[in-house]
This record gives sequence, C-alpha cells and structure tokens, in this order.
Amino acid sequence: MVAALVASTALADPLPSWTDTDAKTRITEFVSSVTDPDSDSYVTPADRIAVFDNDGTLWAEQPAYFQIYYAMDRIARLSEADPSILTSDPLKAAAKGDLAGVMAGGEKGLLEVITVSHSGISVDDFITDVRDWLDRATHPQTGMAYDAMIYQPMLELLGYLRDEEFATYIVSGGGVHFIRAFAEEAYNIPPQQVIGSASKTSYQLVDGVPTVLKEPQIAFIDDKAGKPVGIDNKIGKRPIFVGGNSDGDFEMLEWATAGEGPRFGLIVHHTDGEREFAYDRDSSVGKLVRGLDEGPERGWLIVDMAEDWETIWPAR
Amino acid sequence: MVAALVASTALADPLPSWTDTDAKTRITEFVSSVTDPDSDSYVTPADRIAVFDNDGTLWAEQPAYFQIYYAMDRIARLSEADPSILTSDPLKAAAKGDLAGVMAGGEKGLLEVITVSHSGISVDDFITDVRDWLDRATHPQTGMAYDAMIYQPMLELLGYLRDEEFATYIVSGGGVHFIRAFAEEAYNIPPQQVIGSASKTSYQLVDGVPTVLKEPQIAFIDDKAGKPVGIDNKIGKRPIFVGGNSDGDFEMLEWATAGEGPRFGLIVHHTDGEREFAYDRDSSVGKLVRGLDEGPERGWLIVDMAEDWETIWPAR
Repeated sequence: MVAALVASTALADPLPSWTDTDAKTRITEFVSSVTDPDSDSYVTPADRIAVFDNDGTLWAEQPAYFQIYYAMDRIARLSEADPSILTSDPLKAAAKGDLAGVMAGGEKGLLEVITVSHSGISVDDFITDVRDWLDRATHPQTGMAYDAMIYQPMLELLGYLRDEEFATYIVSGGGVHFIRAFAEEAYNIPPQQVIGSASKTSYQLVDGVPTVLKEPQIAFIDDKAGKPVGIDNKIGKRPIFVGGNSDGDFEMLEWATAGEGPRFGLIVHHTDGEREFAYDRDSSVGKLVRGLDEGPERGWLIVDMAEDWETIWPAR
Repeated sequence: MVAALVASTALADPLPSWTDTDAKTRITEFVSSVTDPDSDSYVTPADRIAVFDNDGTLWAEQPAYFQIYYAMDRIARLSEADPSILTSDPLKAAAKGDLAGVMAGGEKGLLEVITVSHSGISVDDFITDVRDWLDRATHPQTGMAYDAMIYQPMLELLGYLRDEEFATYIVSGGGVHFIRAFAEEAYNIPPQQVIGSASKTSYQLVDGVPTVLKEPQIAFIDDKAGKPVGIDNKIGKRPIFVGGNSDGDFEMLEWATAGEGPRFGLIVHHTDGEREFAYDRDSSVGKLVRGLDEGPERGWLIVDMAEDWETIWPAR
C-alpha cells in the first residue's frame, strides 16, 4: 500500500508536456526546495508569489500582439456605424484589417488605434465585447482561435505552482481588461491576479446606472521598468518566481531575482519555427537581447521551446 | 453529541463585541444567506469580495488622519539633517508637530507635507520607517499607540467574513504603502489586498541594487469616485460587501450595492463621544452627509457605534 502510494506519487509528473531536460529538473528542484519545510530554502506559502508575462510567455504573440487584431476588429465595427471616426491613416488601415498599414503609423498610430478601440465603453461591456470577439476570431496564419494558442507547458507550470501553494499572477504590457476577459477560463487566473497596462477609467452614473467607463487616455504602461512598479503597486511583495520572454520583462526579472532568498527567473526562448514561431534578437515583437546575453550568468533558466517542450498547444 | 455540537455552534458568536441589536442581525443574516448553497442568494466564494475603507472605518481618524502625524514626524527628522527642506510655512509647521499650522496651509499645504515626507525613499525603507514610527508614536489625546486604535467589532467582522470565505480588502484614501506597513499585523490583510492612494514610483538601480522608489508626485487618489476606479483596476470584480464611514466612501457604496444579486452596504456612524469621537455632518475629517441622508433608503446599514458596539478597542 505504501509502495503503491510512493509509486503513484512518482508517476504523477506535474509537467508532462516538458521533455526530461535540465529545464524541467531545475523547475521541479526549485519548487521542491521552497516548499519543503525542512529545507533551508523554505518559503512560507504567503510569500510564494509567481508572476508571468502574457504575450509570448503564456500565449503566442506573432505576427503581432493579439490585442491589435481585436482593436482592428472593433474599429471596423465602430466605423460601420460611424465612418467619421476614421480620422487618420492608421485608423483607416485598422478598419480594413490592414496590419501593415497600422504599423506604418509607428507608435503614435498604434496608440491611436488602441485608444479609439478601447474607450467610450464601460468596462463590463468591453469585457463582453472581447469575449465575443474571441469566440469568432481566428489567427491569420494558424486559423486557430486566439485563446487556443496558449502554451500547454506553461498551463502545467501554472497549475503545478498553484498546487504547491503559489499565487500565480499575470504581469503584462497588454491591457488589464483585455486579459481579464479570458485569463480565468484560459489560465485559471482570476481578475484580481491580472496586472496590465490600463486606460484611464472614470466612475459615472450613466442613465442613472453606476458605471466604470474606459477613457481615451493611457493611465499606466505595464512594460519594462513599469513591471516592477506595477507589481509593487498591486501586490506589494517581490515575487520569488518570474517568467517572461522578451526584454520588456528584463526589469521584472532583474528586480524579482535580486531579492533575498531563493528566486527563480525563467525566459521562454522562441526557438521552434516549425511548431510555433522562431524569433529573438531581431524581432519587432518580443525582442529578446539582454535576456539572452545576461540571463544565464544571472542564473535565469532559458527555456528552449524546441528542445524543452514536448507539445506547444493544449489538446482539443 | 449532536445536541452538544448544535449548542456549541449556537454559542460561538462570530461578533461578540457587537450588541444584540438589529445591526448585528442584519449582518449575520446577510452572510448566512450568501453562504448557504441552498439559498437563492447564494454567492460562490470567488465572488465574495468585501471591501472596507480604513480611516474611520477600521481605525480612528480624529483629530486628524494618523498618516498626517507620521508625515509631521518624518519631516521633523528629515529637517534635523537638512533644515533647507523647510521651504514653506506648512513644512515649517510640520517640523514642529503643529497640526493647526499644517492645516492652515489648506489642501496645497497638506499635499506638500505629504509629498515631501513620502518621497525620496525606497518603498522597502518607507515601510520600515512607518513601522518604527508606529512602535514609538502615541495619539495626542488618548496616549494610545495609533495601531491600537483599531475597532474590535470591525476586526471581528473581518475575521467572520474570512471564515465564511470572503476575501477582505482595504480601499482607502490613505497611502497604499503606509497602510501596508501595518495592515497584515493589525487586520490580517496582506499587502495585495490593500488598495490606496499612491505616489508615483520608479524602478531604478540604486548603487547597483534594484529598487522601487517613491517619487514626489501623486499617481492616484483613491477617494470618492476614485474608489470604484481603484477597485475595478486592482480587483476587477464588484464587491458584494462594502463598509465605509464618510462621504468619501459614497461612490464605492453606490457602485457596489447597485450590482446584481445580494449586496450589503455598511456605514460606521461615529456617535460615541465618550468612548471614541462623535462627528458626522460638520466634521472636516470623515464628513458624513449623503450617507446619512440617502443610506437608509438605499438599504445600507448605519452602524451606531454607541448603540451597536459593546467595546471599541481591542483588549490589550
């Protein structure tokens, strides 16, 4: 009976979609050491905070952040009702679903497309609108639903950490309300554990109904140095486990892994052009330079998607 | 055996410091109804979000917000090292511990005192500094430690709600880092469940050490219409239980209790000039007008501190 239990525990691999490489061993050894009350590295459950970037870390981000496809879709719908909103070339391109045309407008054009598509709507209606879009939209290259393009190995890692009494958070440059629309269903991460970039919001009575409205100004950009700032503001603790994939995650990794006690930094390196997308130093989306150059000497695990992951997408 | 269990359950009053008045009955009936799986009013634990104002709701706020006493204390210490920081009358008054002098500078003077005392320091050092101050400072009228001036009946309410699988949050006009310095010890509320006003912060390497620093600008005022905005941004769910004490809590109460399903709004009415402080409509601190005028018809419970609370402060 005892032998059977031991065998069953040994068989219960918490990360079945990770190949048996060093990456998997390093993760499980870290988690075992911080959860073992007899270990010098033991961390109390209240301090087991794990944070993950979203785009490129939990779901795909090529050929462009999925939120931009949503923005173009919503501008197309808004402009059908009122073509006068298309006051610039990037907005006109967005209405046609012309990604290259949107990108040709640079950062300013993109910001315009995001603010016009993400404002003038209540938070509740916005979340419903994103969910409706996710139900009907498909990725231009894979034909898959966007929220099916999440990484099975990372889902297993999130679940494994939660089983070991970690609190799992998303800390994303993407919009906080956009991610909340699907994070609970996709990742089992509830709204209060999603930190992201945010438009200004206002509280108003709309026809007498108390409403929180999204306004056309940016309140906070949760990227680069904004990530430690966002984590401090919302969590107030320094995470002990951090996962990212691009240099937008560098400061978050740097800050979290510089804390006292055991720390784990993880970078998803997109090496698998056959099953997913291969990109790093020269990519306009998810550019990864410092993480590759400095990560290993800082002790961060560089996950090689092609080598370390048995599967990419969840079985359907 | 069964009888003994029933008797023991009946005896275990979750709110022993609340007198047996209507207030207590309304609270326990609400909690029973939303936690009973057979009730039409049942609410799943994930949606049992309870939020509470801090000043005047969980701890006292007279004759001035306790955070102002901290600010004056820190300015006195900073100016000993560098008198040149006292560039205005409110700052000079603060250094002398002259509350009336600070207040004479109006909102502008107070803001100056807060920003000078709450910036140029890392978040970690700031929290240590607040804790050190709490360990030595005493209230000018009661002589009690500030963090002993918390309301025993509210501590019981927080514990009762958590026992019934509510998540309890603070949503305060006070500073988020200031409150985090004591909220876990005082209220059993961890940092990630404290929402408050916030200075800007920046992420920097200070002598090579990754650091989050408090800057001398205000990033967010978590008061009045800012409270629903802060809750939406940080929690992303509309609370079902809300407690406040002043008109700064009105919008939060209005928004939360307007949601679908069972909702509970609670206002602590400071009626006990003998054991605590008596104030409402005409007070400059914790002014309460709309809550008294509109609260009852909106179904909010107005807690009469003198009548409804057996004790005010925790036993020491």
